[in-house]
Amino acid sequence: METTTATPWLSAEQQRVWRAFLGGTTVLMDRLDRDLRAAHGLSMPEYEILVRLSEAPGRSIRMAELADAVAHSRSRVTHTIARLERENIVLRGQCSEDGRGVSAVLTDHGFSVLEAAAHTHVQGVHDYLIENADPADFEAMGRIMQGVIESLHGRKF
Amino acid sequence: METTTATPWLSAEQQRVWRAFLGGTTVLMDRLDRDLRAAHGLSMPEYEILVRLSEAPGRSIRMAELADAVAHSRSRVTHTIARLERENIVLRGQCSEDGRGVSAVLTDHGFSVLEAAAHTHVQGVHDYLIENADPADFEAMGRIMQGVIESLHGRKF
Repeated sequence: METTTATPWLSAEQQRVWRAFLGGTTVLMDRLDRDLRAAHGLSMPEYEILVRLSEAPGRSIRMAELADAVAHSRSRVTHTIARLERENIVLRGQCSEDGRGVSAVLTDHGFSVLEAAAHTHVQGVHDYLIENADPADFEAMGRIMQGVIESLHGRKF
Repeated sequence: METTTATPWLSAEQQRVWRAFLGGTTVLMDRLDRDLRAAHGLSMPEYEILVRLSEAPGRSIRMAELADAVAHSRSRVTHTIARLERENIVLRGQCSEDGRGVSAVLTDHGFSVLEAAAHTHVQGVHDYLIENADPADFEAMGRIMQGVIESLHGRKF
């Protein structure tokens, strides 16, 4: 499809950047996901959830807040947490403060899994993304993505 | 998990950008996918495949080349093409030139579906991403993503 006729409001240069974004994001996320699965049996979305839990008070977050924090749907997070619970990486329980809602809690075993996985993950982010990026370009990408989040998700990450 | 202890080679600023990238990419792709499904019954990966087919000679690409072009696995593309074939958006057939391999071909109906979907998609890319981005930042993101592709995928998109 010729962009110039079908989509007059994307220039050839914008189209080129957009395709690089789609392709680059796909290969980057696939590679990071594959590295984590091979070394630690975790997917990227699972890893993101464990990071959030590890940083929370009591290593515990309500399911609805967890879904919001990682920008996944509630049903998707429920599915992921069920998988991690079978591996004894997280537990689910009632929130202690007020008895409302269900929380996910990172287990000690889960924390150990996360510590090991973090080395693999950050090594990958460094090697595949940061090492080849100009620091100013990297900051520019951060500004754009922060703008997308604020526009579509209505909050800062 | 404190980045400073577990991951000494990502600075706080790099960690901030990386999180914005993960979150921004997630909400952006989810929104573009949702818009396409609601208006045209197509997912984002399906849309990407139709764009590639529409640009190819005879609107036809071998399955293996198609998988490479959109950076998806061969099995994933096979699954997607099977779905699109049931909707009469693509056909599968032997390559005519040499009889080797199977090609996917965009149908006339598929081309019409794509033309309509392209308007929705590009409007979304414009509204959610480009409109809020500084043009120089947008180009910087393109440089980074092109570098990721060349590093991990070994070719230009």
